[in-house]
This record gives sequence, C-alpha cells and structure tokens, in this order.
Amino acid sequence: MNIVFNHATFRERADMLSFLRLCRERGVGTVSIWGDEITKTGDSNALAALRDHGLKVSGYNRIGPFLPDYLGRAEAELERAAHFGADHVFLFTGGLVEGERGLIAAKRRVEDQVGRLLEIARRVGVKLAIEPLHPMLAGERTVITSMTSANDLCDALGHGIGVVVDVYHVWWDERLEAEIMRTGRAGRLLGFHVNDWLLPTRHRLTDRGMMGDGIIDLKAIEEIMRRAGFRGGLEVEIFSTDWWARDPGEVMEIAITRCRQIFGDRPEATNTYRRRFEDRNSIRPS
Amino acid sequence: MNIVFNHATFRERADMLSFLRLCRERGVGTVSIWGDEITKTGDSNALAALRDHGLKVSGYNRIGPFLPDYLGRAEAELERAAHFGADHVFLFTGGLVEGERGLIAAKRRVEDQVGRLLEIARRVGVKLAIEPLHPMLAGERTVITSMTSANDLCDALGHGIGVVVDVYHVWWDERLEAEIMRTGRAGRLLGFHVNDWLLPTRHRLTDRGMMGDGIIDLKAIEEIMRRAGFRGGLEVEIFSTDWWARDPGEVMEIAITRCRQIFGDRPEATNTYRRRFEDRNSIRPS
Repeated sequence: MNIVFNHATFRERADMLSFLRLCRERGVGTVSIWGDEITKTGDSNALAALRDHGLKVSGYNRIGPFLPDYLGRAEAELERAAHFGADHVFLFTGGLVEGERGLIAAKRRVEDQVGRLLEIARRVGVKLAIEPLHPMLAGERTVITSMTSANDLCDALGHGIGVVVDVYHVWWDERLEAEIMRTGRAGRLLGFHVNDWLLPTRHRLTDRGMMGDGIIDLKAIEEIMRRAGFRGGLEVEIFSTDWWARDPGEVMEIAITRCRQIFGDRPEATNTYRRRFEDRNSIRPS
Repeated sequence: MNIVFNHATFRERADMLSFLRLCRERGVGTVSIWGDEITKTGDSNALAALRDHGLKVSGYNRIGPFLPDYLGRAEAELERAAHFGADHVFLFTGGLVEGERGLIAAKRRVEDQVGRLLEIARRVGVKLAIEPLHPMLAGERTVITSMTSANDLCDALGHGIGVVVDVYHVWWDERLEAEIMRTGRAGRLLGFHVNDWLLPTRHRLTDRGMMGDGIIDLKAIEEIMRRAGFRGGLEVEIFSTDWWARDPGEVMEIAITRCRQIFGDRPEATNTYRRRFEDRNSIRPS
C-alpha cells in the first residue's frame, strides 16, 4: 500500500521544502506538487530537494483555468512538469465563459482546448490528467462532472491523456464501477485521490474529510480501482480548513494510520463516522 | 404556459392563506402545498381557501425522511394529500442511517421503504413522486441523486409512482435528455420545477436563483420536457434566503415575468447572468 502525499493537503503550514522533508521523514516516497509552490521555492531548490530526498513526482498541478490566454502559458508549464519528472499534469478547465449556459457548448469548447494542450503535452513527453469534479462545481470550476464525461473526452482525443479518480467528486455516482472499469480497460487510470465526504458538508471547496471520518465507502472504491488494473498509490488530497490548521507532520501520521486501517490487507475497524449535527434531516428545503 | 407556485418559495413571509390569496390575485390556478403549513392554518381553513379560490393542488410535500418511524405517520399523510386532491406526494428519503456507507445499501433500503409506501398510496389514490436531488446532498438528505436512479426505482416498483424533474438538481447531468425521454415514455413525468443555479452558490440549501439569474439552460430543458410528453405547468420552487426576504407578491410577479421571457412562445431576451464575484477561478482547491 503506497501512499502519495499531495502538497495541497499541507501547504498552509508547510512550504514545498518543508513538505518534501516531512514526506521523506515518514517514508513516503511519492508526492504531487503545485506550480505556484515551486515558483515560491525556486525551481532549482525544489528540484534539488526532490533529488536529495529521492522523491518521485506523481501529479503536477495544474493547467488552467482555460481562460482566453491559457494556451500561451501552457507550454512552459508542461515543459516544467516534464522537467520535474511528473507522471501527469492536471487540467483544471474552469467554468463557463461569457455567453455559455448549461454544459453542452462548454464541453465542446473544452474538448477543443484540451486537444491543443494534448499536442504540446505529447511533444514535451508528459501525460494530461482529467479529474472529473463534483457536480456542485459544474459551470463554476469545471465542465467535466463525471467519470463518463472524462472517459468520453479521452475517447475523443486518443493517447496521452487519462483520468484521475478523486473519491470526493465521484463517490455518489451509480456509474462509478462501470466507468472505473472502462478507464482501466483503456489503460488510462492515472491516479487515485482519497479523502472523505463529511455530514454535513459546510463548504463546497474547503471542508473535505480525513479518510474514515465521512460516508464514502473507500474500501469498496479501492477494490474497484485494483480490479480495474490500477497499481498506483493512494494519494491523500484533503482541502480542509480544519486539517490545514493542524501540524502538517501530525496530519501525515494520521493519514498514514487511516490508510492502513481502511486499505490495509487486514483492515482494522475504523471509527464510525459521526454526524456533525443531529438535525441534518430537519431543514426544510429539498 | 401554465405556472404553478410552490408555497416553499414564499412561505417565510406568507402563511398558507396569504399564499393562496396572492396566487389567485395573479391568476395562478395551481399550487403545491406543504403539510406543516396546512397544520398551522388548520385543515378545514386550508381546504376552504383552496375551494373558494378555485385552486388546484399539484404536489403535496412530503413523506420523509425515512427514519425508523416513517411508516406510522405516512398513511395519515397520504390520506390527507388525497383529501386535498393532490396529484402527487413527494418522497423525501433523507440520508444514510446508522451503519451505512456509500449509497448502494441505502438505495436497497429505500426501494423497500418506497415499496411499502406505494401500497398505501395506491389504496388511498394518490401518486408518489421521486425527485432526484443534487449529488451534493447525497447521503445527507437523499440517496437518489440522478434521474437514472429515480427511473430505476420506478421500474422496480411499477405503477403509481413517477418522477419530478427539478432543474436545480439535474441540470449538470449528461444523461438528462435521455432520462427525461425515458421517464416520458414510461408515462411517469409528474412535475417540472424551475429555478436557477447561481455562480457562485453560497449555500447548498438556501441559495437557489430566480430563473434567468443563473447558468441553467432552462429553455433547452423545457423543450426536452415537452418532447417527452409533459403537459403540466412550470412549478416555481426557489429555496433562497434572498428571495424569502422580499415581498411575496413582488416575487410572484418577477417569477411570472421571467417565465414569460424564458419559456414564452417568442422568448424575449433575458439578462445574461452575472457572476457574483470575478475571482471564481482563483481559489486553489479543485
């Protein structure tokens, strides 16, 4: 059971160099990194630290949002990602642009934009990764809101692009098993992000849970990923003001323990999730 | 173009009797009503007002959440809905119960529970309505998060149960057209709720938009509904602290105007939605 730490989980209290050192101290050998954090640290310092600690890079975050000038900056970003040895680069489509309503026209636009990025990515030698985001972010931060939609996009564009499964975004989808298997058959399962969905969720962006604190059937999804042929690690990506406030090293240790409990060969019992409030069904709107 | 007003859109500043009078004054002949508001007004007062104003009842809200004692109260509620002449009664499944993770087991439980309710509903002569809710409410307030899931449930249970399409919950779904057509072919399209999705959405329950203020392609969805054979009205259901704070009669007039602009035979231009903030793509988490 390999663990990958995504810097976003720790970045509020650990800059890139601290983050890499903390990973190394805990025996975590693979990380996902962010371009803006590299810039803060300096490319050569960041590269040297990765090399000195013997760390591998899984995902590079990220290309997007796809505003009118996105393509001008994309080539340099993709080259940097390749230079850092990243396995894949995340595409962050962003939401609708002026004049768009619904997702149909926006998806056509994004398919065209990703196609252009893919030509560059193939040339510089890095894979592109589509991560479908939760429908609550549709139109605002993404136009790809399901594994189905991500797979359709990959089918249309051919080799060099794949899908990252983040449980937070797709756990509710009745098509999940079928679509993970479809992704696996196409040889394009690039990553597996773990975290949890809390009851209730207080913020659409910054209230993700630690694995085991929420209602996602994480073990069941991991088993589907393995059956679909995924051999990569469990990437811990938790956007959470609660966890950001805590000591990064401690958060790493809790995450490692939870992964062992939930995904280990002989899973230990984990705490049953608690609801944050008991009155979740009492609010009137539906 | 018939309009149906749902009392929930106005209830913060209009009790049931005021609501019915305001509808009547604006020529709206069909309403959807709530059991708790009937109780506040008194059943006989509420019935008399409906009769005096010549109003028809579309939906009765609602049966649920499906807590352990739901069935004991359900028969009386269904009888009351039939007594009020409601076309259909909403099922509000509520979220997970103790020991459930993910949605698979919960859906099996809910199918069993709805099956028991359906026996009662058939006996008292009222239809049950499943309204799939947005996946951001999955596990917390519902276990039915797509039209696909709602249709599958109806297929399993047979006659006397149908689906209400609320654009807020399903607009993002690439399966929407196919699933609305499937619902129509099965003769189980019971209602069509309109409102809008705002950018950004500030609250998962109480920040719906007035039609035209958001990013949903309302006209396109309405055209699908008509092609699928739906002949009912446009039901205005807006859970919104912003709109609840305004004068209910004024909100009705704005809603009527917007429906005319968007859904009329010769739609007038509507305002392009504005984003509430310009920085919607700048927040880091994805």
